[in-house]
Amino acid sequence: MKTITVHASHTYPIYVQNGLLSDCGSYIRQNTKAASVAVITDDIVQKLYSDAVLSSLQKAGFRTERFVFPNGEASKCAKTLLDVYDFLCEKQFTRTDAIIALGGGVVGDLAGFAAATYLRGMDFIQIPTTLLAQVDSSVGGKTAIDLKGGKNLVGAFKQPVCVLCDPNTLQTLPPAIFSDGMGEVVKYGMIRDAKLFELLAAHTQENIFSVLEEVICTCISIKRDVVEADEFDTGERMILNYGHTLGHAIEGYYHYETYSHGSAVAIGMCLMAEKTCSPEQTAALKACLEAYHLPTSVPVPMAELLPFCGVDKKRAGSQLRYIVCETAGKAEIRTASVTDFAAWMEGNA
Amino acid sequence: MKTITVHASHTYPIYVQNGLLSDCGSYIRQNTKAASVAVITDDIVQKLYSDAVLSSLQKAGFRTERFVFPNGEASKCAKTLLDVYDFLCEKQFTRTDAIIALGGGVVGDLAGFAAATYLRGMDFIQIPTTLLAQVDSSVGGKTAIDLKGGKNLVGAFKQPVCVLCDPNTLQTLPPAIFSDGMGEVVKYGMIRDAKLFELLAAHTQENIFSVLEEVICTCISIKRDVVEADEFDTGERMILNYGHTLGHAIEGYYHYETYSHGSAVAIGMCLMAEKTCSPEQTAALKACLEAYHLPTSVPVPMAELLPFCGVDKKRAGSQLRYIVCETAGKAEIRTASVTDFAAWMEGNA
Repeated sequence: MKTITVHASHTYPIYVQNGLLSDCGSYIRQNTKAASVAVITDDIVQKLYSDAVLSSLQKAGFRTERFVFPNGEASKCAKTLLDVYDFLCEKQFTRTDAIIALGGGVVGDLAGFAAATYLRGMDFIQIPTTLLAQVDSSVGGKTAIDLKGGKNLVGAFKQPVCVLCDPNTLQTLPPAIFSDGMGEVVKYGMIRDAKLFELLAAHTQENIFSVLEEVICTCISIKRDVVEADEFDTGERMILNYGHTLGHAIEGYYHYETYSHGSAVAIGMCLMAEKTCSPEQTAALKACLEAYHLPTSVPVPMAELLPFCGVDKKRAGSQLRYIVCETAGKAEIRTASVTDFAAWMEGNA
Repeated sequence: MKTITVHASHTYPIYVQNGLLSDCGSYIRQNTKAASVAVITDDIVQKLYSDAVLSSLQKAGFRTERFVFPNGEASKCAKTLLDVYDFLCEKQFTRTDAIIALGGGVVGDLAGFAAATYLRGMDFIQIPTTLLAQVDSSVGGKTAIDLKGGKNLVGAFKQPVCVLCDPNTLQTLPPAIFSDGMGEVVKYGMIRDAKLFELLAAHTQENIFSVLEEVICTCISIKRDVVEADEFDTGERMILNYGHTLGHAIEGYYHYETYSHGSAVAIGMCLMAEKTCSPEQTAALKACLEAYHLPTSVPVPMAELLPFCGVDKKRAGSQLRYIVCETAGKAEIRTASVTDFAAWMEGNA
């Protein structure tokens, strides 16, 4: 069993092991005093994994309740959240009980926000079942829902009491969803770990599974190190947004359709690399992303994307902070006015 | 100017002064870097005070926006909260802006929860305009909304960057709302401060105004001391719930109509005193409450109230914690099973 220990407002373990899902109850039992657990999941994950999880939880002595909502980003909304609240109320959950998020980022974000706010906070456990959720959403404590006005506009910082990653669950992922996660995995290599980047560049989507447990642990450790230095996201943690300023703009331009988050981040990294990296580094980044079936460009003129950077909520006042990696493994935070950033990206500065 | 400093997850000042409202902008300016502030208030307070507040804020250089909702507990719901979120989004508030709660407990709880969660947290400023909000809601960081299933079921801990109490605003309160606050004021005397209790017992609702600034400061200081020892409400802070176990039951029995929170707490204190205090102390408590037009008994058999204690969210598992003050100024936390508590209150144990 590989265990990564995270020191946030409280200390908690992330367990990574193939096959972990069917023994989750005993690990969760070690980390919460809850009598009852609410397993929140989506309809796709429910069919695949919720019976195994519930059975292991019951074996460990928990009363279990299950809340299922339709898969997809559209469910990460106030309506679903209010349904979860009513469900917790109806099933008489108390402050000393726990919520388990079983699924991808949508499930984790929504269930985590419910756990942060129902009765002003219950224990929260994550069982991420997508690559993106395992390497990204499971560390950092960010939870959120979307509003009509934008993604992740409402949320809270909520640290889990433990996280259980079972890489076996990634084998049932559709290839496109796996690729989506690889966008963030490549990002970790670029911002902090040249060796990870090389390992990824030496593999493809078709043969990465043999080293995936190691890759997941490395990504989690990188995120852990960055987040521990900046739990409340006011400085250094910003480097995790590499590729995201333009990535979010691409997602916004396409109304969060067409490109997945990981695909948009992949393009965002490439657009930034073209401005700041050597031709060799840019080519290596693109080749690596292509090996995981990720896009490296977008058929939209920069001028049409840029307005969508301007509404990025990370914009502080009229200033924009963005991340540059001139070489793999080294990230820096730069600041520009929205105007100067636009001129620079359009090649006029 | 009287200033009480609170040491919570961050340190912040509570300013108490007659007439403070019309100079609020300069004090708020000292405590936030916000460019824009959203003043959230209800339709009654808006007419009385929001022009003075907005004008002072604008003089201090803030861009101001105002969100007004109907006065009353019914507004402390998900619907109003979502409207506030949409308002903040539409007016393009950022993470570095601030929310100001101008009003009583409903406004403070709802605006505070919005400030805790919009963009995962903005600066929050409280200008409480009821006695209850000045002595109770403004310290401790508890924010919440109600669900159909119960009051305050969804919320967060959110410390303000500053609190401004202007006792002059209490002069426009309807007498019943003033009494409501006095229920909590008497509670502070009972749990921690025999001198405060004597001061209150020596006055009436009709002549308390001359010492009210002092009384407010004393209550805030007591709550500050208790909360500082227990920010996340896991132990000692429980003593603030004196009168609340049965008080909440009374509120629940009457569907939060008939009795205000302060009135229900007043009755809750008397019911507990009858079980645990000397006849003299019980009589003194009742006389004091009556001087502020508060009720001291309820025309409902204990057996009918008790089921409403059982659904108290403060119940941990099947155990109930409740507060006893045998003499004014001294509180202790006791624990019983829901069953034993019921037998004891019904006089069968």
